[in-house]
Amino acid sequence: MQINRFPGNPLLRPADLKPSEPDVVVECVLNPGAFRYRDRIGLVLRVAEKPRTDDRTAVAVWRDPERGYVQLRVDRDDPELDFSDPRVFTYRNRCYLSTISHLLVAWSDDGGRTFVPDYSLRLFPATTHETYGIEDCRVQEIDGVYHLTYTAVSEFGVAGGHCTTTDWKHFSERDLILPPHNKDIALFPRRVNGLYYCFHRPSGLGLGGNFLWLAESPDLRHWGNHRCVAVTRPGSWDSERLGAGCAPIETPEGWLELYHGSDGKSYRLGLMLFDRNDPAKLLARSTEPIMSPIEGVETNGFYGNCIFTNGQVLDGDRILMYYGAADTVVCGAELSLRELLASLR
Amino acid sequence: MQINRFPGNPLLRPADLKPSEPDVVVECVLNPGAFRYRDRIGLVLRVAEKPRTDDRTAVAVWRDPERGYVQLRVDRDDPELDFSDPRVFTYRNRCYLSTISHLLVAWSDDGGRTFVPDYSLRLFPATTHETYGIEDCRVQEIDGVYHLTYTAVSEFGVAGGHCTTTDWKHFSERDLILPPHNKDIALFPRRVNGLYYCFHRPSGLGLGGNFLWLAESPDLRHWGNHRCVAVTRPGSWDSERLGAGCAPIETPEGWLELYHGSDGKSYRLGLMLFDRNDPAKLLARSTEPIMSPIEGVETNGFYGNCIFTNGQVLDGDRILMYYGAADTVVCGAELSLRELLASLR
Repeated sequence: MQINRFPGNPLLRPADLKPSEPDVVVECVLNPGAFRYRDRIGLVLRVAEKPRTDDRTAVAVWRDPERGYVQLRVDRDDPELDFSDPRVFTYRNRCYLSTISHLLVAWSDDGGRTFVPDYSLRLFPATTHETYGIEDCRVQEIDGVYHLTYTAVSEFGVAGGHCTTTDWKHFSERDLILPPHNKDIALFPRRVNGLYYCFHRPSGLGLGGNFLWLAESPDLRHWGNHRCVAVTRPGSWDSERLGAGCAPIETPEGWLELYHGSDGKSYRLGLMLFDRNDPAKLLARSTEPIMSPIEGVETNGFYGNCIFTNGQVLDGDRILMYYGAADTVVCGAELSLRELLASLR
Repeated sequence: MQINRFPGNPLLRPADLKPSEPDVVVECVLNPGAFRYRDRIGLVLRVAEKPRTDDRTAVAVWRDPERGYVQLRVDRDDPELDFSDPRVFTYRNRCYLSTISHLLVAWSDDGGRTFVPDYSLRLFPATTHETYGIEDCRVQEIDGVYHLTYTAVSEFGVAGGHCTTTDWKHFSERDLILPPHNKDIALFPRRVNGLYYCFHRPSGLGLGGNFLWLAESPDLRHWGNHRCVAVTRPGSWDSERLGAGCAPIETPEGWLELYHGSDGKSYRLGLMLFDRNDPAKLLARSTEPIMSPIEGVETNGFYGNCIFTNGQVLDGDRILMYYGAADTVVCGAELSLRELLASLR
């Protein structure tokens, strides 16, 4: 199978982006949702920012729905600070984050090979359930409405956020369509037997794990009939966690889903095929990953050895797949739908 | 405030119940849902059973939807067994349980003071998402249909199960209305502003905690607009976890909810009051618990110092509240709605 990484990778780096405020720096740009709108291809980038600081001060950051960015600055030697994991900031037994993500749209007029950020289209955390950031947005157009599903992070947990737009100018109110702990909500592009479907990735405590689940909905807002449809495989490249990429692709052989799996050391991509009339029925699954981090931008960065996709657009047999590399930059690759399906036979 | 524990406590003990199979023993009977049906009061008991064994053998048990109970028996000295927590059985890196719960209905013809088990009415785990047991059932009658919400436990996690009955003979198919990790689903008794509501208790990983959430639904099967409505209070009796009891009680002052809170050492009961037209709005909350484990059956047992309620029936100002004591036996108490409301003023 041929994975044609774009020669122009990385497509976007932190240095390519203007920070959203004067006193913050862009730390990472990653995990874009992708969509077609009119003649263009759009990406919904996740932009992770952090306040400027010096070596002696640790900073936690969140966004208050009314006041905007709020910082908590603490001396690194403060005995009440636990900063052993640089992403998490625990102070006086309360947990904060050291970066905060928002979403930024970028447009391509050359068929998805280069992208220009549209600074008029930033989506910031907007509710009390998004104060620590919004991340990893999937975009799915259904009946003329674009649905954005993303990870909403706050002191209340990590949950499944949702909003819609029809014109990429005005957006609906945000709500949580799935409660904590949940990520990786990928909507199916159409109803199956009268109901909408999505993949999602709840996480267990004790029993259970980081498995792939399916849910159904009459209206894309309320979800039920949750079922686990694929689990991690001990000893395999997806032994520790797995989650959906974006929407499954409808093919004559079934719903084809590009998914990520991790063994705790590396995030790689694989395939699953589900029955066209019963999306809970797993028909086939990649034994080996179809794509692994091998390029420098994929192996080195904020979180090295990581390929994570949540955005793709289709063009006949071609899949233009966008992915976050090492949680730091945005890359693209071209895949053949026919070849992907053949690899599962 | 007067908490009148029933003189007949405990109402039901493990020794009062017939095991469901010859080679298992009833370990605990606890956490009953409660309801009125025709002239009677019913309880839906959680019955935890374990296979008979000797001191040298550890046994894990689950229920296969087709084969019934399945046991895994391992020598206690087996180096691949981890049995340090007697409730959990970890063998070859896979997690099992050492007891399994099903639901059993018991009826009272004396106004809820004594109960007789109805062995024709056992609900066993029935799906792949219930193989490790079904637990802590709430019962809510809405428009003539009884909705049972319970904790469904399996290798896929701990999730929110649901089924219905109208006649307490025939039950609908089971499904999961909330994905893992979730417990304590309490349905509101009627629609508010056109939508059904429930409290539930998802658990966070890292960020978040064991907080009380609200969700809404058009049909009681599909749920959305999840919002956290109450959190644990550091240093308090409910510092570690909290969750709903059963349905909130509608009063002129708002929706009154009896809830459980734990500080890691003791499970106690408290009150919350929510706005009648906006159930997400918390109006008042008990500072101190209204009921704590003090009786012997509450302080000593499988899990001592524990009072847990998920069942009540109303009779004017009187609340007949049923509860699991020390995770081992079922007890009851009488409370005054008027006094509970007064305690919050």
